[in-house]
Amino acid sequence: MKITRRGLMTGTTGLAAGAVVGAAAGVATERSGDSTGVASYPFRGAHQQGILTPVQDRLHFAAFDVTTTDRAALVRLLQDWTEAAERMVAGGSAGPVGPVEGDDRLPPDDTGEAIGLPASRLTLTFGFGPGLFSDADGEDRFGLADRRPKALRPLPHFASDAIDEARSGGDLCVQACADDPQVAVHAIRNLARIGMGTVAVRWSQLGFGRTSSTSRSQATPRNLFGFKDGTASVKSEERDAIEEFVWVAPGDDPRAEWLAGGSYLAARRINMRIETWDRQSLRTQEELVGRTKSSGAPLSGGDEFDEMDLEMPGRDGPVVPVDSHVAVVHPDNNGGVRMLRRGYNFVDGSDVLGGMDSGLFFVAFVRDPDTHFIPLQSAMAKQDALMEYLKFTGSALFAVPPGVRPGEFVGQALFA
Amino acid sequence: MKITRRGLMTGTTGLAAGAVVGAAAGVATERSGDSTGVASYPFRGAHQQGILTPVQDRLHFAAFDVTTTDRAALVRLLQDWTEAAERMVAGGSAGPVGPVEGDDRLPPDDTGEAIGLPASRLTLTFGFGPGLFSDADGEDRFGLADRRPKALRPLPHFASDAIDEARSGGDLCVQACADDPQVAVHAIRNLARIGMGTVAVRWSQLGFGRTSSTSRSQATPRNLFGFKDGTASVKSEERDAIEEFVWVAPGDDPRAEWLAGGSYLAARRINMRIETWDRQSLRTQEELVGRTKSSGAPLSGGDEFDEMDLEMPGRDGPVVPVDSHVAVVHPDNNGGVRMLRRGYNFVDGSDVLGGMDSGLFFVAFVRDPDTHFIPLQSAMAKQDALMEYLKFTGSALFAVPPGVRPGEFVGQALFA
Ligand code: HEM
Ligand code: HEM
Repeated sequence: MKITRRGLMTGTTGLAAGAVVGAAAGVATERSGDSTGVASYPFRGAHQQGILTPVQDRLHFAAFDVTTTDRAALVRLLQDWTEAAERMVAGGSAGPVGPVEGDDRLPPDDTGEAIGLPASRLTLTFGFGPGLFSDADGEDRFGLADRRPKALRPLPHFASDAIDEARSGGDLCVQACADDPQVAVHAIRNLARIGMGTVAVRWSQLGFGRTSSTSRSQATPRNLFGFKDGTASVKSEERDAIEEFVWVAPGDDPRAEWLAGGSYLAARRINMRIETWDRQSLRTQEELVGRTKSSGAPLSGGDEFDEMDLEMPGRDGPVVPVDSHVAVVHPDNNGGVRMLRRGYNFVDGSDVLGGMDSGLFFVAFVRDPDTHFIPLQSAMAKQDALMEYLKFTGSALFAVPPGVRPGEFVGQALFA
Repeated sequence: MKITRRGLMTGTTGLAAGAVVGAAAGVATERSGDSTGVASYPFRGAHQQGILTPVQDRLHFAAFDVTTTDRAALVRLLQDWTEAAERMVAGGSAGPVGPVEGDDRLPPDDTGEAIGLPASRLTLTFGFGPGLFSDADGEDRFGLADRRPKALRPLPHFASDAIDEARSGGDLCVQACADDPQVAVHAIRNLARIGMGTVAVRWSQLGFGRTSSTSRSQATPRNLFGFKDGTASVKSEERDAIEEFVWVAPGDDPRAEWLAGGSYLAARRINMRIETWDRQSLRTQEELVGRTKSSGAPLSGGDEFDEMDLEMPGRDGPVVPVDSHVAVVHPDNNGGVRMLRRGYNFVDGSDVLGGMDSGLFFVAFVRDPDTHFIPLQSAMAKQDALMEYLKFTGSALFAVPPGVRPGEFVGQALFA
């Protein structure tokens, strides 16, 4: 069985696109950190991929500014992106011809750096930013203003935010997740290439290590504080929680029925002061998080996935401190809301002070940011003891249209 | 068989440290892109690891400034780094206790984000920069000036260099290569933590995709121009070429006999103008490189590893253009010299113009930069047609001491 990402010449063996290979069969899944046994995921369906999908190891996230005011050009872009995305997630090249097969007097329709690489569980997830519905001057440049989802506004300023505008916002976003970063980068780069003249990359972020699990079958990974991250995130097996907290339901937003079956993506680039963190005692670190560093169990006892007891008394106050991160953001203290987190660790070299410019690129999918994200981020900014070790440097919110049905392009219902 | 990177709790299966597992046995090597069947490499030996080692998939490279003038503190650092490095490359934690096993009133001696991860073929390679032998004011701060290797000077300015000092130079460097970036980042981060007060990170660079092969058994990977990169790099199987072009020989440099068995590491951060590149025809791209994009064969014909014919006539001039990259840097045009290249692709978000800040983090190991690197870099800067698509933004040169013998610390002979 061989995948021929067009131009395959190296003899690297891949798994067939769309194929599910039983892990029990003992087949090595190349570059698949979680041995899901899956080579690729279908691009079309009721919901977009890359949300419930078992979290892949690496991320390349890009936000784009739309540089045209021509609605038809925007639609054409989304059509072209849909075609290219469907090909690439199946392990193919960005264009129909391929990186090396065409007329050599023309630029290739694929850039070639993924030749020979398997699909690597690539998923591509598209989102629409507030700017698509009205530009910086409030201009309704694409005639979409009256279909703007009610919660799609730039995120507010939270206490102690240190947001860099150059790493924030965007009219469109694409989240590329894959087990091989070269495959994720290739996808973003080719979408940017296809969009030349219509969109320009506003910012992009590489993530090297996942910090969440979206399936009970995935081990919980660790963030750069060394703690398990993703334990209490909504899992794909929790059917009810997904309906309640992830997907926008029909009727949620009469102005934006096109978003039903979609979601909102909140992105926060969070620098972590790891040098200071590393000087704290293990006990302090655990009290800041509210869970143990070894197993990820709540400080109130039990195993990683056991319920935490926020009331259990400790020496002074509850054993899970009231200002610990998990206490502050726990559903019991936030009207029962939960979110599907899907963030990644990043290191972008050094900051000006010689520390590593590193942290967590936080990504959450929520049904309604006004009730499921903003209140928690506010609570965190105000009460969370972990804040002393964090610096929020990027921020963005996107509406994620529902899945792409056969024959449709991404977000088609918005333009209908 | 299980690796217990201290604190392992997740049940992730790894391969035993130092073990070589026959690929024929059908055992999946987790996160090993090349199925070398190797889990880890011995830290000690005649030469440092991470040079001839089959190139791992990911890189985290860090350059440090030494912030002390105390020679004993510097020696202690190298001793501590040696101990930590030996543990980490074997799949263990940075300190003897581990991330979660110690007294919880103390900071852990490992930061924890690699708990449960296998060794992932991590190698750590150490280098000494010019600043160790005399600081910015020419001061011989550690009494090492008379042992300075003769070729260890900051690299000169080359035509059209656009070097960012904040991404250049350094008194010490550590190259961490691994198949899992989280493991490489963990290693650098813990070495930085151990060095707190003695060294500070000056710059660091993540590389997500290797762009070279150091063994004939590795497939040649691709750079962000989509071309195979590493074809003609010196391979570990070429015993004579390695002696001639990679290792400093006894007698090469009477002042610096401590460097015999070592090498020089030249690092160049090279931004690639991929947006402009992507608009060139396939033919133009191939003429700029001098090889085909599909197989990597010379334009003079044959297969990837066949000799190229620089004289073969084409329509106007040789079929491998005289200003193509491979012609300019080919041994035939450079007194027969070769180098061992070991670079990585990088993407560091976006540059100010909205392009991707991406390219090649070029790393070469050479016996003598004055004859094996600088002349080629000069020729390239002056004559190479590829230069139009490149921007050199970082630059550094380090002397890489020989391997660490049992009971020794890294670079010990320098301090004897
Ligand atoms: C760098 C910043 C952050 C770090 C290091 C961090 C770390 C953690 C850790 C270790 C856990 C416990 C394990 C788990 O359930 O995943 C956790 C849980 C959680 N975090 Fe964060 N987090 C960060 C930022 C945020 C932000 C910005 C939000 C949203 C505003 C958030 C919301 C949550 C939620 C909802 C939970 C689950 C609480 C529960 O239901 O028990 N986190 N986080
Ligand atoms: C982003 C910048 C660069 C790119 C994209 C690039 C790309 C390539 C490619 C595609 C090849 C042919 C395949 C191979 O033999 O590996 C090659 C060969 C080579 N490159 Fe580069 N290269 C870059 C920078 C450099 C630099 C800075 C040097 C050293 C000054 C260098 C030295 C060499 C050498 C010595 C060869 C082998 C030539 C031969 O023996 O045939 N390259 N490079």
